[in-house]
Amino acid sequence: MRNLLLTISYNGSGYCGFQVQQNGVTVAERVQDAIERITGIRSDIKGCSRTDSGVHANMFCINFHTDTPLSCHRMRRALDAVLPEDISAVSVEEVPDDFHARYSCVAKRYIYKIWNAPAKSPFYHNLALHYPRRLDTELLNQAASCFVGTHNFAGFCSTGSNVTDTVRTIYDCTVSRNEDLVTISITGSGFLYNMVRIIVGTLLDINEGKIPPDSLPGIIDSCDRNKAGPTARPYGLYLDKVYYQLPEEFSK
Amino acid sequence: MRNLLLTISYNGSGYCGFQVQQNGVTVAERVQDAIERITGIRSDIKGCSRTDSGVHANMFCINFHTDTPLSCHRMRRALDAVLPEDISAVSVEEVPDDFHARYSCVAKRYIYKIWNAPAKSPFYHNLALHYPRRLDTELLNQAASCFVGTHNFAGFCSTGSNVTDTVRTIYDCTVSRNEDLVTISITGSGFLYNMVRIIVGTLLDINEGKIPPDSLPGIIDSCDRNKAGPTARPYGLYLDKVYYQLPEEFSK
Repeated sequence: MRNLLLTISYNGSGYCGFQVQQNGVTVAERVQDAIERITGIRSDIKGCSRTDSGVHANMFCINFHTDTPLSCHRMRRALDAVLPEDISAVSVEEVPDDFHARYSCVAKRYIYKIWNAPAKSPFYHNLALHYPRRLDTELLNQAASCFVGTHNFAGFCSTGSNVTDTVRTIYDCTVSRNEDLVTISITGSGFLYNMVRIIVGTLLDINEGKIPPDSLPGIIDSCDRNKAGPTARPYGLYLDKVYYQLPEEFSK
Repeated sequence: MRNLLLTISYNGSGYCGFQVQQNGVTVAERVQDAIERITGIRSDIKGCSRTDSGVHANMFCINFHTDTPLSCHRMRRALDAVLPEDISAVSVEEVPDDFHARYSCVAKRYIYKIWNAPAKSPFYHNLALHYPRRLDTELLNQAASCFVGTHNFAGFCSTGSNVTDTVRTIYDCTVSRNEDLVTISITGSGFLYNMVRIIVGTLLDINEGKIPPDSLPGIIDSCDRNKAGPTARPYGLYLDKVYYQLPEEFSK
């Protein structure tokens, strides 16, 4: 059996996440439907992550075993044609048998999009958080840099998670503006449940003066969920990049 | 009565254009609904242009007369809150009584978005044309420059239009790429029916080698609709800017 790495991109607005234990359509189901339509067999698929309901992905990796004789090129084209409008098949490649989309992953980048203008955007409904108050990207960048490094992020994890090791390494955390669109970008070795959304909620609290920026290192060290900001809404969040090799810039 | 200039932005996917003689919901109706809900009176509104079904607007200007005592600031906020998710109220300002959104307009900029990658984009469905074959932006920019100037654009006008003067001035026509998104931008004194979409269809034919680039000046001069390319699909098209004063760069 061949082991194929399928990279997809999806608009999560209409889905209950990639693969969750809920009633409702998931991205995984749609991908399995597409593979079955092309190969005739319903494959078990492994996703690189579990995204929440409403969360999007610019890059999401999946692997599955198949004995289809189709070339990777034809497989991608066929999958892209068969998948619904809100899921695209970006690439298909052959990977070693022991490659696992989730366990082989060494880092991920998430971005969070904020439409920062008085009026809502008709093009970013469900694709960015509408935040009318002006965001101070200089202040937020200073605050964001406090997350970089290896920390115990227990305070930035929603209850209900059964993870015991809450230490994660953040390689990069920056805030940038392109006209009315502000993007928070976070790259890390791994992320706890809702960790990015709680980091974003904390940065928004800092922008509003509810949390003094210089108290942030203490809030991280406290490991107290109640000291961090609220969990930002899901629909501004995108899994943006999945790393199977750590780039040199992060591996020093 | 006050004369108010309302600037909106809209995602045209769900509308039969701004104001057309068809069955189906129009943007104008939704704007009139919103004004009526706030002022209590259904105002007659004047739009800067008639956009086709499925066409979008980053900036679209409307004027209407009202005796509401609300400030422009409050009026904008109330309209933005009442308008549906795919229409936003960007600004409201008081204008002289003789200002007319359409007749006072001296130039407009349209952009046409093309998603130029092998896989479709889950985020640009209905918001850009998916064109998998690689676009040569250098070649297209050279061709685009042929449209600049004052020409008789009779060959770039769909039949069914009853306009007699088909001479228009194009100030700027450029093609740019931002990763997989290619944008064709056209600024002109005015546009004939489907003119931008036929210009885009012609540029795509040039990219495919169906029309030799050096024949373009002759095609324009011929005033023959059959020599130009096909009318590109509506959903990549955006009214991007409306000018009520010609910028210095265009007025030489």
